Amino acid sequence: MRRLRLGMVGGGQGAFIGGVHRIAARIDGQWDLVAGALSSDADRARASAADLGIAEDRAYTDFAEMAQAEAARADGIDAVAIVTPNHMHAGPAVAFLKAGIHVICDKPLAATPEQADQIAQAQKDSGKQFILTHNYTGYPLIRQAREMVARGDLGEIRVVQVEYAQDWLAEETSGKQADWRVDPARSGAGGCVGDIGTHAFNLASFVTGLRAQQLAADLQAFVPGRQVDDNVHVMLRFAGGARGMLWASQVAVGNENALRLRVHGTKGGIDWAQENPNVMTFTRFGEPKQILTRGGAGSSAAGTRVTRIPPGHPEGYLEGFATLYSEAAALIRHVDQGQALPEGHHVLGIEDGLQGMRFIAACIASSRGDGVWTPLG
Amino acid sequence: MRRLRLGMVGGGQGAFIGGVHRIAARIDGQWDLVAGALSSDADRARASAADLGIAEDRAYTDFAEMAQAEAARADGIDAVAIVTPNHMHAGPAVAFLKAGIHVICDKPLAATPEQADQIAQAQKDSGKQFILTHNYTGYPLIRQAREMVARGDLGEIRVVQVEYAQDWLAEETSGKQADWRVDPARSGAGGCVGDIGTHAFNLASFVTGLRAQQLAADLQAFVPGRQVDDNVHVMLRFAGGARGMLWASQVAVGNENALRLRVHGTKGGIDWAQENPNVMTFTRFGEPKQILTRGGAGSSAAGTRVTRIPPGHPEGYLEGFATLYSEAAALIRHVDQGQALPEGHHVLGIEDGLQGMRFIAACIASSRGDGVWTPLG
Amino acid sequence: MRRLRLGMVGGGQGAFIGGVHRIAARIDGQWDLVAGALSSDADRARASAADLGIAEDRAYTDFAEMAQAEAARADGIDAVAIVTPNHMHAGPAVAFLKAGIHVICDKPLAATPEQADQIAQAQKDSGKQFILTHNYTGYPLIRQAREMVARGDLGEIRVVQVEYAQDWLAEETSGKQADWRVDPARSGAGGCVGDIGTHAFNLASFVTGLRAQQLAADLQAFVPGRQVDDNVHVMLRFAGGARGMLWASQVAVGNENALRLRVHGTKGGIDWAQENPNVMTFTRFGEPKQILTRGGAGSSAAGTRVTRIPPGHPEGYLEGFATLYSEAAALIRHVDQGQALPEGHHVLGIEDGLQGMRFIAACIASSRGDGVWTPLG
Amino acid sequence: MRRLRLGMVGGGQGAFIGGVHRIAARIDGQWDLVAGALSSDADRARASAADLGIAEDRAYTDFAEMAQAEAARADGIDAVAIVTPNHMHAGPAVAFLKAGIHVICDKPLAATPEQADQIAQAQKDSGKQFILTHNYTGYPLIRQAREMVARGDLGEIRVVQVEYAQDWLAEETSGKQADWRVDPARSGAGGCVGDIGTHAFNLASFVTGLRAQQLAADLQAFVPGRQVDDNVHVMLRFAGGARGMLWASQVAVGNENALRLRVHGTKGGIDWAQENPNVMTFTRFGEPKQILTRGGAGSSAAGTRVTRIPPGHPEGYLEGFATLYSEAAALIRHVDQGQALPEGHHVLGIEDGLQGMRFIAACIASSRGDGVWTPLG
Repeated sequence: MRRLRLGMVGGGQGAFIGGVHRIAARIDGQWDLVAGALSSDADRARASAADLGIAEDRAYTDFAEMAQAEAARADGIDAVAIVTPNHMHAGPAVAFLKAGIHVICDKPLAATPEQADQIAQAQKDSGKQFILTHNYTGYPLIRQAREMVARGDLGEIRVVQVEYAQDWLAEETSGKQADWRVDPARSGAGGCVGDIGTHAFNLASFVTGLRAQQLAADLQAFVPGRQVDDNVHVMLRFAGGARGMLWASQVAVGNENALRLRVHGTKGGIDWAQENPNVMTFTRFGEPKQILTRGGAGSSAAGTRVTRIPPGHPEGYLEGFATLYSEAAALIRHVDQGQALPEGHHVLGIEDGLQGMRFIAACIASSRGDGVWTPLG
Repeated sequence: MRRLRLGMVGGGQGAFIGGVHRIAARIDGQWDLVAGALSSDADRARASAADLGIAEDRAYTDFAEMAQAEAARADGIDAVAIVTPNHMHAGPAVAFLKAGIHVICDKPLAATPEQADQIAQAQKDSGKQFILTHNYTGYPLIRQAREMVARGDLGEIRVVQVEYAQDWLAEETSGKQADWRVDPARSGAGGCVGDIGTHAFNLASFVTGLRAQQLAADLQAFVPGRQVDDNVHVMLRFAGGARGMLWASQVAVGNENALRLRVHGTKGGIDWAQENPNVMTFTRFGEPKQILTRGGAGSSAAGTRVTRIPPGHPEGYLEGFATLYSEAAALIRHVDQGQALPEGHHVLGIEDGLQGMRFIAACIASSRGDGVWTPLG
Repeated sequence: MRRLRLGMVGGGQGAFIGGVHRIAARIDGQWDLVAGALSSDADRARASAADLGIAEDRAYTDFAEMAQAEAARADGIDAVAIVTPNHMHAGPAVAFLKAGIHVICDKPLAATPEQADQIAQAQKDSGKQFILTHNYTGYPLIRQAREMVARGDLGEIRVVQVEYAQDWLAEETSGKQADWRVDPARSGAGGCVGDIGTHAFNLASFVTGLRAQQLAADLQAFVPGRQVDDNVHVMLRFAGGARGMLWASQVAVGNENALRLRVHGTKGGIDWAQENPNVMTFTRFGEPKQILTRGGAGSSAAGTRVTRIPPGHPEGYLEGFATLYSEAAALIRHVDQGQALPEGHHVLGIEDGLQGMRFIAACIASSRGDGVWTPLG
Repeated sequence: MRRLRLGMVGGGQGAFIGGVHRIAARIDGQWDLVAGALSSDADRARASAADLGIAEDRAYTDFAEMAQAEAARADGIDAVAIVTPNHMHAGPAVAFLKAGIHVICDKPLAATPEQADQIAQAQKDSGKQFILTHNYTGYPLIRQAREMVARGDLGEIRVVQVEYAQDWLAEETSGKQADWRVDPARSGAGGCVGDIGTHAFNLASFVTGLRAQQLAADLQAFVPGRQVDDNVHVMLRFAGGARGMLWASQVAVGNENALRLRVHGTKGGIDWAQENPNVMTFTRFGEPKQILTRGGAGSSAAGTRVTRIPPGHPEGYLEGFATLYSEAAALIRHVDQGQALPEGHHVLGIEDGLQGMRFIAACIASSRGDGVWTPLG
């Protein structure tokens, strides 16, 4: 089985998430990185490509040129990974989709609703795949949690508590990672709510299978002079009657990357935290709490399918991310042969991206409306 | 130094919180229980008193009679503990205050605002002490947290996250403890919000010293047929600009008594959970997280003052409660001699009780108003 | 039911364990402290007694005088608690037993085998009760663990891992608590091994019901100039084939009072740590690990019998200790009426004390013999 | 920079550790797997190679043939990974070394001392690199722990506690992974002691930099009929006076892969557990315990050098293993150019392997000698 050929837009020297995508693409041996427009700076683009063993003639400085050139090659890329700041998603996404190349794109979908719509339209017109990397859905125990909810282990869901707390933006900061995230021109109108709030919202939706109908939000920008939110309080109402709370913060001193999800139903409850992702507690009402481990006793098929090594041998963030790349590969292999994605695979796409955009928009609208309950588009 | 003489209203055989108050009163050797109207059922009152070594002539069946009789005795009680359901606080509280006897009363203050006002008026008229047992304020690390916030270890407070999750009312239940809590005639209009939401709210206020100005609430009654809320979502706005979220639930399967408080400021953050109350984490921005232990390295004076045994020897719920009884004793001894309560002592009273009543009322009003931001009285 | 009358030897101002015994005796309302020889220093004895509300005529400075005087009173003490350093156990224990008064005594039994034998002989001659306060046996989950082992939940026991780590003697220290513990004339030949090693050994024996037959030990005195061991490594062989390891240390920097017991059998394993004593994990082979809580779902009768408050409301060190006082009271009440102690009660006595002395002696002998396997007396 | 070419011996379909090596080799993009003798079964060898994209002419069934053929190719492999059961290390290791090809080999070094010596001799004769994959040394916090000890953060080391507990062999089992591990002909005379005891021993040595001089061991085979040990108790004496305990077990029900290391010195103590490898606690004597995170505040250079992603984004077992492959690549690149390995890199080799063999031999000898203190070769 040949490896698929991957291109990348963004992710040059000094970037963070580009390197993550590359490791994720390597872990399961499904992809080779063969082309890139890694930076809009020509020197950096070239140097970055050389570091990565990309041939000189496939080290582009312009994504549009790259889309054309790769589409024209017999050995052109099967898919491109877009790992630029939010406002730079739509341009390359549309270009590659139009060129007939599948797109793997970091979240959130775009910086503005208009950009999001452009991507959606291009995807629809092209018939090519658009794959959104909400990477936390790749954790085995998150897959297991989803399966447990779906098969009724928790009964009817009542309460969803999700939070995503960081502290790295607690003070005025500068640097490649921070700058664009606090600049509305590049991040979009949402700051924290877009950057990590969307992850939290997506995770709650993914695990519970519930659609949020309304939210009431209170957004703050605590750091003086900050133009986007850095702390987000949201109350949620889901279809079917479940309720939730969502907290996202980039100023919560004492937190590194504390994404946590709790779901409580009539029959059971689960609790999972990303920083130690190989364990999840599960309580059946009236019974002792259980510690479920990735791949351990009591694992569900959905969880073990995406598990590489035995329990007690921790898998982490990169493995979860790698699962998205392996499932993207599976999707592309199958659709290229006119087949459906096998059961148990989960690939997030345009609709999930639009749902994230609606979440951001609703949070901002509700907060500006002094917390009025606001529908999600 | 003579022990103070304690009477009790409520707390007969089969009760829960009455037994807790009694142990709490014994632990530090400041009180002797010498009188009681332990039940309105005469037989049970007598039998309960006998169990506890209360003399027959001080085993009352009527609190009004008890107030009169004890006030008339040379060796009458110094204070009475009221440990009845919420709707039965005001009657005895007013009676004992009018009889010139200090009152120690379980929370919340009362079942209705009217009852609360009656107590407040009686306290004012009598000049006697009214002591409210928000027992979680008695934990040494909570005292330390308060001191740390007050002296600026956390900088300016930005975000307060407080939650109190239980699951014992996740299904329709019956029994002495459950029945009155889900009966609005006895618990008041608030269910979960009054029973444990007030604890969470009080704890957040106590530690941060911040006054909540507004809240937006979404209350649910998940168990079919339940007449009071059993799950409570609240967003908070504090004077000075801090924001908070409060979650209280009695249907969150997998939780026993999971009260947790997190406070994040410009310079630091703390995290404390009641079920393992002898540790608290503290992070100074940019430094490794510290695990502070009750009485351990780095303890504050406020924490060690109410600590009985060395770190590593866990104190629990009853010791925290006992601190309230010891501070009540200190208060009574000092005021009886015209002195002020020594520094470092904290006794909650009428104002804290009224604040809790305002919290309940605002939650209910906001929730009925579809989450409108509602001032706290 | 009248409260029993307690006397105390040792425990004057500045002492640690005496205060613990007094709180423990108060918690369940079974005892009144009415007499004491709290210090050999007359002034301190008097002042300490006054602090505690002991009548002047029962504030003794000499334990022998106290034994005589209390035995002669109609309202004399039912039992005496001996809370002096190790070398001061035998004198008062023998005196009170000879005077016909039950003895409650801190561990280890004595500083020397000779003293231990004197106590044993006096107990035998008197027919009075001798109760040894290995307080960690009073924790509800330890009772539950014992019951679980006894009823076969763990299958046949194979491996026992017990450790008790502290760091407060990591440097040369001085002070009332430290001084006598590192002075062989007062602590006995064992330092750490006697002070906390005996607790660890007792706990392992209590929970498993297994008798240690042989041990191989390596004792160290790490702090320069220290005359007794401060770190203890032991391998154990139990009757029936189980094996164990025991580590006790008072120089393990980073530990406050870290007593931990793990027991592994053919069918299951448990793990309990004293610093958070309200939880214990239990794994049935091939099933997810369970978190058992004190009094929570799946609690055994043995555990709930000694539990005062609901799960999630933590009980601690003092409550565990209090259970020993309540069971001592139960024992005395029953034997005084010619009855057997009710099922489920556990009172440790002379034989447990002698077993502890044999453990100390075997550790020292083995270590001096370069780790030779040494029988336990 | 070209990727290095990797071959593999063992690791065909159904194997465990071979797949781990392959992922580890891919993660950092330093290696391409291009040749293999993946199984001695010809069909399985071919099929396994095809799965992995290995060209047909480099899918060997015989390691000796592979060594010859690869040595003869201009594009021959730079190194071979040997991932066979213990008794099959020496044959291929000697063959590839003699053929002038670097060897990466799983632990323990060999099944017998004779085999170990053969490898050592072949390595010496060839001048080629022999790299032993004690993968737990690759964890960033283990690197940091080593650096902290080396620079004196813990003071003089006194006590080392290391344990490695599993339960997967608690019953008689069968299967590809279990079979050879309990067969002395394939595993060597040591069972658990060789399989995981060596990891624990190596980790303690790696972090502390201390050489174990003597040990006293008690080995058991609990499962009826088992011919090798499955539970290992060891006391250790290190050069310089530190002491240790080591517990390894494959029958400790309730443990998946519970490798834990604690080191206590005169000034500080650390505690690290492999199952959540992104945190380590560190206590300076007299100060609050700190939670150090991989790459977080207070990270050392040694730890951050081998860290790929920010703190709070967990890395796991595969990333730690990958660091060994990246450092092996660095070593090969440097020695091939006559340069020394850069500072901060750690590659374990023959001497570490021999030390592991001496550990196994000493444990067996001591245990057979009833626990006599036995020097380590």
